[in-house]
Amino acid sequence: MTIHYPNGHQYHPRPSRLRHTNQLDSISHADRGMSLEQAVNESNQYYRARNKAVIHKKPTPIQIVDVSYPKRSAAVIREAYFQAASTTDYNGIYRGHYIDFDAKETTNKTSFPLANFHAHQIQHLRDCFQLGGICFALISFKPSNELFLLNGPDLFSAWDLQSQGGRKSIPKKQITQKGYALPYRFNPVIPYLDAVDKIIAAHKGEKNEF
Amino acid sequence: MTIHYPNGHQYHPRPSRLRHTNQLDSISHADRGMSLEQAVNESNQYYRARNKAVIHKKPTPIQIVDVSYPKRSAAVIREAYFQAASTTDYNGIYRGHYIDFDAKETTNKTSFPLANFHAHQIQHLRDCFQLGGICFALISFKPSNELFLLNGPDLFSAWDLQSQGGRKSIPKKQITQKGYALPYRFNPVIPYLDAVDKIIAAHKGEKNEF
Repeated sequence: MTIHYPNGHQYHPRPSRLRHTNQLDSISHADRGMSLEQAVNESNQYYRARNKAVIHKKPTPIQIVDVSYPKRSAAVIREAYFQAASTTDYNGIYRGHYIDFDAKETTNKTSFPLANFHAHQIQHLRDCFQLGGICFALISFKPSNELFLLNGPDLFSAWDLQSQGGRKSIPKKQITQKGYALPYRFNPVIPYLDAVDKIIAAHKGEKNEF
Repeated sequence: MTIHYPNGHQYHPRPSRLRHTNQLDSISHADRGMSLEQAVNESNQYYRARNKAVIHKKPTPIQIVDVSYPKRSAAVIREAYFQAASTTDYNGIYRGHYIDFDAKETTNKTSFPLANFHAHQIQHLRDCFQLGGICFALISFKPSNELFLLNGPDLFSAWDLQSQGGRKSIPKKQITQKGYALPYRFNPVIPYLDAVDKIIAAHKGEKNEF
């Protein structure tokens, strides 16, 4: 019998020896056949269902050129093109704070290439941060199935160094030190708000506005 | 000679007797040939350019069914459908606060029909408000060219009354009393953050989290 999750994804049972140990913590979204985007979306759904946070992925921007309106049925878009997003993919609210981030993955083993970001995405994160938002990147290293949250200021300084002729990637060692490791779980798959709690706590010590 | 704004819209000069009086304040976006959406987008652009706020319209969600990839040119979406949005149209950050709203217009003269909202949009605004966000509706009365900002709690109570068998619209008189009138200006076209300032000030008096 095939069991489906409510989201329509098939459920693939794991070997039972794994299912009762804490090794579950190390099963990544990739092992579960999920893309990083799916994993983030499921985590957001989990948080929303528990009234912890309201964070959504923005729809992909599309430029519509031609639409036909068949009788007695829905409008059909017949010609359209993908547009470059002017912002990041995710934003919303958590504990009264504006949250803004993007999720990126690399097949690189030892560093995260900054080319994964567009300049306007960094600018957007920076603008939101200046206005008091909590802005960050989720960075997935696919070869090792590791995921990190890198806070805005650390991302911005790496970006600025690059603009000044510095290295074009962030060493994984630096991400390990400055970022927050996110162990994969079941619920939510990516518990990134735990790391956001730490960012809020750290800022409370420094500033008034947080 | 035809003069174009940088946004590509044509500039239609107004009678000069108007251009040096404060009657400009009462020239609505509609008079200027703009849709409400365009007027809100231009206002957001104005606020972003001045680092006052980062607020964007979310792209329309589209379900893509078929994409063709012509050689040496961009991918073309050949079949796609409009999807119902699961959130409101606008969100972002202002003065450290999460901002979430929708803009609606009615041709009605004396009241705003609640049917302009979907239940899930109200729920979304309510969820964000519960988490500490500033959530509201921009309501445009087209016949009189009047625009109001109605704060979330006032919108929610009208919605709840309707669910309990109450009236299916909010009387304009009530919106005039409880909401914030937004006079049209040139820069920005819709100065809605002025009303948000008043909401923040009112909350500061009441609660700690604002």
